[in-house]
Amino acid sequence: MTGYDPLKVRSAVAWAGDHIEIVDQTKLPSSYEILELRTTDQVVDAIYRLAVRGAPSIGACGGLGIVVGLDEAAPSDADAARAVLDRLVETIGDARPTAVNLAWAVRRVRAVAATADGPEEIRATALAEALAIIAEDREACRLIGEHGSIELADRHRILTHCNTGRLATAGWGTAAGVVYAKAAAGHPVRLYASETRPLLQGARLTTWEFMDAGIDVTLIPDSAAATLLATGMVDAVIVGADRIAANGDTANKIGTLSHAVNARDAGVPFYVAAPLSTFDTSIASGEEIEIELRPADEVRVWRGQPIAPPDVPVWNPAFDVTPGAYITGIFTEAGVLRPPYTESIAAAFVAGGAS
Amino acid sequence: MTGYDPLKVRSAVAWAGDHIEIVDQTKLPSSYEILELRTTDQVVDAIYRLAVRGAPSIGACGGLGIVVGLDEAAPSDADAARAVLDRLVETIGDARPTAVNLAWAVRRVRAVAATADGPEEIRATALAEALAIIAEDREACRLIGEHGSIELADRHRILTHCNTGRLATAGWGTAAGVVYAKAAAGHPVRLYASETRPLLQGARLTTWEFMDAGIDVTLIPDSAAATLLATGMVDAVIVGADRIAANGDTANKIGTLSHAVNARDAGVPFYVAAPLSTFDTSIASGEEIEIELRPADEVRVWRGQPIAPPDVPVWNPAFDVTPGAYITGIFTEAGVLRPPYTESIAAAFVAGGAS
Repeated sequence: MTGYDPLKVRSAVAWAGDHIEIVDQTKLPSSYEILELRTTDQVVDAIYRLAVRGAPSIGACGGLGIVVGLDEAAPSDADAARAVLDRLVETIGDARPTAVNLAWAVRRVRAVAATADGPEEIRATALAEALAIIAEDREACRLIGEHGSIELADRHRILTHCNTGRLATAGWGTAAGVVYAKAAAGHPVRLYASETRPLLQGARLTTWEFMDAGIDVTLIPDSAAATLLATGMVDAVIVGADRIAANGDTANKIGTLSHAVNARDAGVPFYVAAPLSTFDTSIASGEEIEIELRPADEVRVWRGQPIAPPDVPVWNPAFDVTPGAYITGIFTEAGVLRPPYTESIAAAFVAGGAS
Repeated sequence: MTGYDPLKVRSAVAWAGDHIEIVDQTKLPSSYEILELRTTDQVVDAIYRLAVRGAPSIGACGGLGIVVGLDEAAPSDADAARAVLDRLVETIGDARPTAVNLAWAVRRVRAVAATADGPEEIRATALAEALAIIAEDREACRLIGEHGSIELADRHRILTHCNTGRLATAGWGTAAGVVYAKAAAGHPVRLYASETRPLLQGARLTTWEFMDAGIDVTLIPDSAAATLLATGMVDAVIVGADRIAANGDTANKIGTLSHAVNARDAGVPFYVAAPLSTFDTSIASGEEIEIELRPADEVRVWRGQPIAPPDVPVWNPAFDVTPGAYITGIFTEAGVLRPPYTESIAAAFVAGGAS
């Protein structure tokens, strides 16, 4: 895989001069289709239907959606343009209310664009800011991959969970980015992707993007990770994160905690990869993170086919919380954070000037 | 649930005078259908298609299949009947070559029946032996449930894996039998059933049989067990077993080890429930148990629907091995075996006179 550069590969979200192009993630892995988004309705619909998913990808699409909305409305003066901005922040920002990156991205684009003079300048400023968000995410991914690749220079058989790659971010991803960086550095990478029930992001998306990149990837049922780890088939586990508390406790896709506990039991290092924007230093520990419960039919039904009694009660948490004590290191754009996390995370925020 | 007696409920395999009746497990949970097996071909087909599954259920069906085969062949004398027995042992015994109970049951029925005089006596002896196998399995299940129920008198929220109940055995099951026994004793049982990817025996079968019995059951994705255990929602884990080594190391459905490791980490007791026939004291430890790999499409495809790229490599082990050191106790018909298992298992075989 020497010389492979996933950053040159098409991003899941791209600006095409007068419209957005996204990889339609609802069609993968059966077919690879590019969807053109030319109206606000199309942007909202794509986000709502999960045609674009992954927090940074959604943010990138939302930011560019502001430009699509401005072009569609064609405001005649600056005040009208600012009114359009306000409306778009609501319309696009509400497409997925729980996606923190989406609201953050559309507000950031509005705040900067609203200061410009005239509708042309407002549109140009909005586009520049949306592209800046994408560029920053790509750079954060690149740095995370670089730090992770150095840390794991001698560990080539990697287990990951869910999808954290170039479909989920504007760059090559977080946990997946480390694997891409290792492949780009010529390491003989072997990736194990756990399927990630109930929505199967690992089976559908992670396998697809690594096969597409020509990197050795093997799919496993989530429950097979324990014996994969216990029998010495894995050198390191890397996962992404939805939210990291001040002490390193990490909320991530359901199934992450199980991998962490099994890795610890097997003596295999367990890493988290996430940009600093994922840290929430306002919460001291994972105990303050509420577990979101998802609909029962995500577990009971697969594409219209029942796989369980239709009325069976289901417990379907969206994510779990892995204690910081179980995490070997956290790959960020500011370097590898190590225990004790309360100190290393605080130091990263002072050094990086992050808020 | 006081007074509920699952032993009075229809068994998954029953003799109906001149044919076998089985619950068609391929139709569950969508519909509950009784399949009548009146020919050797129908018996072999039902076993091959997994219409009947679970090691003891397959053994029960195979044993009764000998009687169906004798009736079909209608041998005119004892020698002809014995020739039919020999042929049936091959035909039925090979329907699932890896199912130890199947080969064991048909050989046991043949060995006893072949000693009888005349075709009528041979048929009657075969039927009596097949029914004895079923009766012994029901009694073992009853005793396992009784011992487990006493041990877990104060632990009501139970996590189990796969299907170990009245569909898998001739009785009320092994791990599931403990839950039935607790419910019959009036305990306020709450069962969590992990779905058991890739074939979903937990989602399809365990939920169905406990809902049918009116016992509180909740379905979870396999990967949600870690957080269920870590957050104190479970008082004990009980699983079945495919094979138990002399030191207590236990091979069981893939996903069992993950539950054991997570239970240990959360401080929740982890039990195995199995008849003495499941113990293989010829192997000293689980290291001698080879991991059987199953077809990739079990993971890649669900009822004809692709859930992953069609050509992605898959690692799909049928079971894993849980170290005896992680097991709090093993419920058997001879009582609760406890660590150190090398001693308690040896003692059970001396006391029970088992081979």
